[in-house]
Amino acid sequence: MKKHFLLSFLLLGFVGVGLQAQEALFRAQQIISPEVHQDNSVTFRLLAPNAQSIQITDDFLPTVKIESPMGQMDGPGRADLVKGENGIWEFKSQILGPELYNYSFIIDGFTTTDPNNPFLIRDVASVTNIFIIGGGHAELYKTNDIPHGSVTRRWYDSPGLGMDRRITIYTPPGYENSTEKYPVLYLLHGAGGDEEAWISLGRTAQIMDNLIAQGKANPMIVVMPNGNVIQDAAPGEGSMGYYKPQFMVPKTMDGTYEANFMDIVKFVESNYRVKADKANRAIAGLSMGGFHTMHISRYYPNTFDYVGLFSAAIMPREDATAKVYSDIEGTLKNQMNNGFKLYWIAIGKTDFLFDANTAYRKMLDNMGMKYEYVESEGGHTWRNWRVYLTEFAPRLF
Amino acid sequence: MKKHFLLSFLLLGFVGVGLQAQEALFRAQQIISPEVHQDNSVTFRLLAPNAQSIQITDDFLPTVKIESPMGQMDGPGRADLVKGENGIWEFKSQILGPELYNYSFIIDGFTTTDPNNPFLIRDVASVTNIFIIGGGHAELYKTNDIPHGSVTRRWYDSPGLGMDRRITIYTPPGYENSTEKYPVLYLLHGAGGDEEAWISLGRTAQIMDNLIAQGKANPMIVVMPNGNVIQDAAPGEGSMGYYKPQFMVPKTMDGTYEANFMDIVKFVESNYRVKADKANRAIAGLSMGGFHTMHISRYYPNTFDYVGLFSAAIMPREDATAKVYSDIEGTLKNQMNNGFKLYWIAIGKTDFLFDANTAYRKMLDNMGMKYEYVESEGGHTWRNWRVYLTEFAPRLF
Repeated sequence: MKKHFLLSFLLLGFVGVGLQAQEALFRAQQIISPEVHQDNSVTFRLLAPNAQSIQITDDFLPTVKIESPMGQMDGPGRADLVKGENGIWEFKSQILGPELYNYSFIIDGFTTTDPNNPFLIRDVASVTNIFIIGGGHAELYKTNDIPHGSVTRRWYDSPGLGMDRRITIYTPPGYENSTEKYPVLYLLHGAGGDEEAWISLGRTAQIMDNLIAQGKANPMIVVMPNGNVIQDAAPGEGSMGYYKPQFMVPKTMDGTYEANFMDIVKFVESNYRVKADKANRAIAGLSMGGFHTMHISRYYPNTFDYVGLFSAAIMPREDATAKVYSDIEGTLKNQMNNGFKLYWIAIGKTDFLFDANTAYRKMLDNMGMKYEYVESEGGHTWRNWRVYLTEFAPRLF
Repeated sequence: MKKHFLLSFLLLGFVGVGLQAQEALFRAQQIISPEVHQDNSVTFRLLAPNAQSIQITDDFLPTVKIESPMGQMDGPGRADLVKGENGIWEFKSQILGPELYNYSFIIDGFTTTDPNNPFLIRDVASVTNIFIIGGGHAELYKTNDIPHGSVTRRWYDSPGLGMDRRITIYTPPGYENSTEKYPVLYLLHGAGGDEEAWISLGRTAQIMDNLIAQGKANPMIVVMPNGNVIQDAAPGEGSMGYYKPQFMVPKTMDGTYEANFMDIVKFVESNYRVKADKANRAIAGLSMGGFHTMHISRYYPNTFDYVGLFSAAIMPREDATAKVYSDIEGTLKNQMNNGFKLYWIAIGKTDFLFDANTAYRKMLDNMGMKYEYVESEGGHTWRNWRVYLTEFAPRLF
């Protein structure tokens, strides 16, 4: 028996072990892609003997001008892979700077993923491959050999929304084995996102672990809720099952989320060892999450000492009638008079929301409401939002 | 400003908002695939005007015979998609039974994922799309509107392996808000797997939530460790960064994992409210994890009252010299004499490990060691391992 088993098991690696595992092994191409070289150039490879043309695209290539209904705008560049005699296509990039990059292949006009790279990120309904070039700020995106916090997907009861809802919670290293109380950052996603967005696309756990290990941020709990009130959870994780995610979800930005946000704060403060006061609460969000942050923080004007607007979608639609959107200036004045420690606004120079943020800052200036302002390169991208988190978190508590 | 913002934001859904989000929206094809019809047939669609041929493959199609180095064996079937005038290719399946299915497209010979379905599962180095046909046992794989447990990715210190290691832990609904102590199931993955395998491919959280809600399983903690001792975490989640996962990892099945398994038990029992006795400990695993289960449970012969071997790789290599693999019969006799409540062996009729399991059962018979035996259809597949979990968990505690 031993011999028989030995033979079978050693063959595993070559011929597979059954329908699915076997398929998993057969399907894998025996090549490495991407290969990051010592000088931080990267070679991408693909075995596709029958293809006529293969290109690679995304944010590690210089941008190009593309036409859109809003006029000419920046789009992701493309580069050609070259076919070798063995049917393996290759492209070697220029030397790349530190960053977490996305890419896709375009095979005879068909955009798809790299079958040799199982590391993927979903953004709304699209999935792309990722890779990291280390160094600089990108070191914060890596899982380094340091103490790690825990990441929990948990469900909380929202009486206001009438459902149990999924929420992602980062607790810092040591949380479980102490009696200490911690401050809390509420971190909100943008349109098309959900409770998975910050933890996957935003690298929140890696960023917080690294900042805390380096002594640059105080240990804190980071709460990442789902801002789409009709969902109990991210697409594929909730009772709606599998369906194609959409960018704009019904009842988005109609005031319901903001009006029920205290369900989340109450859940956190009655389930975690937290310092439950204004001085130890921060709220920040990107795009739609910046919109939520701005409205939540002034609607509950004595709740958060730290507010972060990352590429924020500032103002509601003119037809938005929810109470939370009324008397914006008056409630901002309340917030200002109640006092806060940091009101932080960041946006990229080419962000389509740049003008809206400039106008909002002018309004704050006129009111005499103090804020800090960071103007970065680039636009409305996760690349910027990750950096904003690395800059905002060290300012807290 | 409001008007400007309104315009910009409403356009978001149509033209994208920047390099990455824009790309995420542009890339998405505006079609639905897969579409599960009322009668549980499924239509798959793909927009690929330039393709010459498109096939679909995987485990929802009847198997076909394929040649392999081990001789003829079952392989996944294939079916042709048909091109419509609009460049959209389609295939409609027969009526499918309840199951979680995998599939891939083959475009002009190139195997890839469905760009209209962002729900993917990684198995070793390969990524495939998934969909669920409900009903029967597949209802247990869905996220239903019932109380949900929490799933935590956490790091534990393994003094024996000299590193912090990532571990996935399911705590049942209500765990956080009670003072009750819970029993623990240690659930081990197979070769090529890691601490993500059971929670993603195995649907452990959904299965346990559903079994507990139906009163079919007792509330329990499920601990899913990483059985590859050279890894601190799953590929892409640890300090080794992104690399192409392999089926057989160095130092696999050399005794190191088994000899250090108590690091995990100690961590769990000192960090969770558990009933820390034999009557409240279960261990089970699939394939290599069945091998680990068999050896761990007899090496620590008075530790587990419940043992589950799912398609187990039974015996060590003949050259395996680790102490844990010595005196197998003697330690099994110890385990038998110490007593246990359930020794559960399950395997599929076409599993390549079928004969090895038959021989092992003969050895147990000769020793007079009692076990329960389940012989299922099919082979060495996650489809079977999910079902085994739904059958084993209700038998515990």
